[in-house]
Amino acid sequence: MNKSLEQEISSMLPLFQPESIAIIGASSNPAKPSGQPLVALTSCGFKGQVYPVNPKYKTLLDLPCYPSLRDVPGKVDLAIIAVPAKLTLPALHDCATKGVKSVIIFTSGFAEVGPEGARLQQEIAFAAKEAGMRICGPNCMGIFSARNALMANFAITELPERVLVPDFLGFISQSGGFGAAIYEMIKDRGFGFSHFVSTGNEADLEFSHYLGYMALDPHTKVIGGYLEGVKDGQKFLQAADLALQHKKPVLLLKAGRYPVAARAAASHTGAMVGSEKVYNAVFKQKGIIRVESLEEFQVMLAVLAGGNLPRSNRTAILATSGGSGVMLADKCAHYGLEVVHLQEQTRAQLDDILPEFASSANPVDITSAIMTQPGLLEQCAEIVINDPNVDILITAFWAVHGDRSNLEQMIRVGKRAQKTVLNLVWGPEQVSREVINLLNEHLIPAAREADFSIKALSALAKYRQFTETRQQVPTGLPAIPPDAKQRASSILLGKPPGTSFSEYSAKQVLRAYGIPTTRESLASSPDEAVQAAEAIGYPVAMKIMSPDILHKTEAGGVILNVTSAGEVRECFDRIMANARAYKQDARLEGVLVQEMLPAGTEVIVGINRDPVFGSTVVAGLGGIFVEVLQDVALRVVPVSPADAAAMLEELRGAKVLKGLRGQPPADTKAVLDIILRVSRLAQDFPQIAELDINPLLVFPEGGGACAADALIITG
Amino acid sequence: MNKSLEQEISSMLPLFQPESIAIIGASSNPAKPSGQPLVALTSCGFKGQVYPVNPKYKTLLDLPCYPSLRDVPGKVDLAIIAVPAKLTLPALHDCATKGVKSVIIFTSGFAEVGPEGARLQQEIAFAAKEAGMRICGPNCMGIFSARNALMANFAITELPERVLVPDFLGFISQSGGFGAAIYEMIKDRGFGFSHFVSTGNEADLEFSHYLGYMALDPHTKVIGGYLEGVKDGQKFLQAADLALQHKKPVLLLKAGRYPVAARAAASHTGAMVGSEKVYNAVFKQKGIIRVESLEEFQVMLAVLAGGNLPRSNRTAILATSGGSGVMLADKCAHYGLEVVHLQEQTRAQLDDILPEFASSANPVDITSAIMTQPGLLEQCAEIVINDPNVDILITAFWAVHGDRSNLEQMIRVGKRAQKTVLNLVWGPEQVSREVINLLNEHLIPAAREADFSIKALSALAKYRQFTETRQQVPTGLPAIPPDAKQRASSILLGKPPGTSFSEYSAKQVLRAYGIPTTRESLASSPDEAVQAAEAIGYPVAMKIMSPDILHKTEAGGVILNVTSAGEVRECFDRIMANARAYKQDARLEGVLVQEMLPAGTEVIVGINRDPVFGSTVVAGLGGIFVEVLQDVALRVVPVSPADAAAMLEELRGAKVLKGLRGQPPADTKAVLDIILRVSRLAQDFPQIAELDINPLLVFPEGGGACAADALIITG
Repeated sequence: MNKSLEQEISSMLPLFQPESIAIIGASSNPAKPSGQPLVALTSCGFKGQVYPVNPKYKTLLDLPCYPSLRDVPGKVDLAIIAVPAKLTLPALHDCATKGVKSVIIFTSGFAEVGPEGARLQQEIAFAAKEAGMRICGPNCMGIFSARNALMANFAITELPERVLVPDFLGFISQSGGFGAAIYEMIKDRGFGFSHFVSTGNEADLEFSHYLGYMALDPHTKVIGGYLEGVKDGQKFLQAADLALQHKKPVLLLKAGRYPVAARAAASHTGAMVGSEKVYNAVFKQKGIIRVESLEEFQVMLAVLAGGNLPRSNRTAILATSGGSGVMLADKCAHYGLEVVHLQEQTRAQLDDILPEFASSANPVDITSAIMTQPGLLEQCAEIVINDPNVDILITAFWAVHGDRSNLEQMIRVGKRAQKTVLNLVWGPEQVSREVINLLNEHLIPAAREADFSIKALSALAKYRQFTETRQQVPTGLPAIPPDAKQRASSILLGKPPGTSFSEYSAKQVLRAYGIPTTRESLASSPDEAVQAAEAIGYPVAMKIMSPDILHKTEAGGVILNVTSAGEVRECFDRIMANARAYKQDARLEGVLVQEMLPAGTEVIVGINRDPVFGSTVVAGLGGIFVEVLQDVALRVVPVSPADAAAMLEELRGAKVLKGLRGQPPADTKAVLDIILRVSRLAQDFPQIAELDINPLLVFPEGGGACAADALIITG
Repeated sequence: MNKSLEQEISSMLPLFQPESIAIIGASSNPAKPSGQPLVALTSCGFKGQVYPVNPKYKTLLDLPCYPSLRDVPGKVDLAIIAVPAKLTLPALHDCATKGVKSVIIFTSGFAEVGPEGARLQQEIAFAAKEAGMRICGPNCMGIFSARNALMANFAITELPERVLVPDFLGFISQSGGFGAAIYEMIKDRGFGFSHFVSTGNEADLEFSHYLGYMALDPHTKVIGGYLEGVKDGQKFLQAADLALQHKKPVLLLKAGRYPVAARAAASHTGAMVGSEKVYNAVFKQKGIIRVESLEEFQVMLAVLAGGNLPRSNRTAILATSGGSGVMLADKCAHYGLEVVHLQEQTRAQLDDILPEFASSANPVDITSAIMTQPGLLEQCAEIVINDPNVDILITAFWAVHGDRSNLEQMIRVGKRAQKTVLNLVWGPEQVSREVINLLNEHLIPAAREADFSIKALSALAKYRQFTETRQQVPTGLPAIPPDAKQRASSILLGKPPGTSFSEYSAKQVLRAYGIPTTRESLASSPDEAVQAAEAIGYPVAMKIMSPDILHKTEAGGVILNVTSAGEVRECFDRIMANARAYKQDARLEGVLVQEMLPAGTEVIVGINRDPVFGSTVVAGLGGIFVEVLQDVALRVVPVSPADAAAMLEELRGAKVLKGLRGQPPADTKAVLDIILRVSRLAQDFPQIAELDINPLLVFPEGGGACAADALIITG
């Protein structure tokens, strides 16, 4: 990165807040991409200058039309290019000459159609960079901003008629058509868009730029997006950090979870797709909410618009039949909302007003008494919502044609509520949709589908918890020795990419960063080996050290439990002979004499490099957990203490560390410390392509951990 | 069971097809449970006699009202009891005297309110049994049947106005209120109910009876239900078999997956809830489709009503934007639908009519050309549907206000299709709902939510596959030795419940059923031990045998790798001494001398007893798979060869059996054989409360398997 993301964002102002727009290839046909922006900009009240450019016309929609850009009288902040692919580069050169600051290229026929298009796209990107212009597109639908009626797109050509929540959602889409569809559905529910961007092929500006822009934009409260792949992982991380700093939830529909879809996405925009596991890690680390359906997205927006983010996952259910309460309790448990015990006092208050056959235990079953006792729903909701154990109230009731009493009760409850209230409204579709719409008009969250709604609440509760944890002063970063980087450099640097470092060298690097390893010494003769063994104390292990022998056991290069000087000499000679027999021209560094460790829990910790996001730290349990279950956790660097703790928590084998069948718990603190040290190592040396500490032996609590074997490969 | 389920079902005819109905406690108030059936039966055209019974009135709704049941002139097939709880038993006695054949009891205040109510409920059940009457309820909403306008309930009081699919769904609900809500939502979509039953407390007739009734009922095509718990597991299995025989899909919303919901369900109807794992096994074994939301349920009904069950999971996606195709491909992969490769010819045909920037690869992206090329959607759909690789077509298009062209194209496609076609219709809610409703009116499946829809398709594809596999002649049941039961009886029978059988006895039982065990012999003296060891061959293992010592190792009662006669004598004495020291009064059967087995994969196979469904067979991998991951598969007996194969497939550690890191695959055939033999043993001896073969050592393919240790407990 040459420029900080914030600098880059300031260069995007002419794109989002232009005072003058030229449309190159303009027409007045409202059915064509070349005509839509002109029609929309003039009809929707855009305040700046609009200059149609097209040699075919003298005027368009009563505006003077210019034969070329250089004939435009004033300055041009933004040019929209809507000419065929082969005319795009010349048009861009015209923009450069004119001093245009930003360009939206609708035109397709670039990277998405093959190698030739990709070359043309590179030329475009180069020309724009040279001239200091920012590009949105090519192959995009452009940009819509509500405040300044910026209709610089061919997807959204009218200002929405009915906006319940203005200045709300900024949306970024890597699919034009799907993005436009999402826009329509969200708009239809009355949520206002601050901006909508179709990013196209991202020849210059990419998803992360827009994400960063919206993070800083005062008129955007929530950021949403449809994402197929990130180009520059670091930029994305920076943009996500900006959103966190400015307390803006980021809700992303991320496609390509499964290979079949990832392949389709890759062919769709030619995006680098990257590893699903790494995306998930990044989302966790940056508090990004992964959205899996539009329905879920809408519920999240409704809760965010209502302004009461769940303070925790502690939930009460208020249903009008026992069965629906049971079903909702199942859904809550499934998605991680805790169905809490209500306080004694709450239950007593409920029992006072509920009929005998109702249930005041959570899920509360207020029964069909809702139909005969006016105001019962509101009273029960108030009682439950005041229970200090409860942060989320989910009500489920029945919409009856022509009867607004439940609706009115829940509007009153919703308006007073300082906690999250979600209303599930069931009944014949038409009637329940009407009730839901009326509740939503008062910004009171309501939906029909229990499944999506409860999933959405759970995601928001996790998000809020994440942001709160993040505000706490981080503690627990280990003290790295001041000379660590220098000591590791002397080992790692100056070697060609692809170098494998032997266990001996790799462990020196680990020790430099304060990671405990076996006590050991490299011996180049039987005498040195005996000396080493006596210093370490018997029994010892002896291993061949050679950059050319990766599988030491296979080469007959490992002997364990060597107990005397005589044996050490004998083993030294045997190991060297085996190694030579195994690989005649192997470079032999000598024999590593090493302490024998007591038994411990086998853990692996390491570094992997992701093509998009760079270095990642991985951790898992050894043996079948890794081999059979691929049970490893992963985070991009830098890994925080909270990240490290979450990594161990998410392992399916987490129980093993807690101590199986009466065994003492393992020293997880030591593992966490080592994960953080490894993260620092990865930060200091991005050239490490792979580090495997395997196994890291972890001893019972307080006993620490020790790297028993290690390997580093640079790249 | 004294009666077969089919006999019981025939006793339910007067309940569902009564020629005369008495309403005890009748009123003419249509707002009260006591008034609703009278009003509804008279207004909806019930063809039989209706006799209101209530000493307070002379007539009700122009019908003569009788002071008591004995004053009713004709015979009474069905009585509805709607009097307070304390008057219910006398009313039931009146019914018995009158010769009534079936009774629906609306009244609540029984098992659901506590022990006293439960006692009253027992008395009711007893009285009905004595008199040969069948009871629906108490604490239920009753029964509705469409064909004969049987409005014997207080939930559904009008015949539906608009029925697109008559004689379709039979629905059974263990929650009155929730069931009624489900009824309304399903009815609203035009699906006709053959019957709707609210089962209440199930004092007599239970969920399974109604399930069986509907399986045999010619006017029911599909059976649905809301289930909290089954009372008699065997009856449920029989009813599910009847549904399979009559090719009726059973779709159940089963509540209580999570403990918090299960507890709520238990307190809700007082039902025995049973183990979630066992319910899942039963559903798999009987092809029951587990439904997790009403939305999913509606999509399933739409596909079933359309008549084209998915022939397989092989799916093509036709979307109007790249992004939505990618998202749908993700959903398909998530729920187990295969996004297939289209044939060359299909792609060529698509390429002929699609614009260049479209994609003919699955997911097919027909792009916005759908708006400019009339008929393109229909043409593409036809081409894709004719691809032999495709059994399911999912289209996603955009509903545009006032434009019916997509709708009309997809109606034509849907009507011609011999394969499953599902239309996802997106757009502003109002418009897309209208289009969906119009498609559904032509019985063409359509929905808005991708997630639910794809989940539903996948479940139906699995169901169809299940029914087809089931029709194949089953092979692979092992030949059990004819004297197996007799030999096992001589060991297992005549002992008090709770008896633990030692390894030695347990293995004799296994051998009787043809399950290989270690060669071994029980020695009661050092001489016998030596004799046994010589016969088996050295080395041997030696283990204490005592019904009072379950943890042999802990007692110092196991010595492995004994290699000579001298050692055998020594070990015999040591083991006996250790055992006496460990537990002074332990009954010592002697020392088991056993062959030492070579290394193998450790598997566990066993029997567990479920309180609802009886004996189940469990299988899993040993070690951390069981201890940490609880990775065991389970089926109720009898286990079929297909069930056994599915058990091993569903283990997360299945890979281990297939051979890790170049190791040869384990002899899974031997494991399957043993599972089936254990199933037969469980069938023959329901008194086995627990059998653990742990470990069953499994050798490489062709090498068989061998029970290394075993334990049986009866109960």
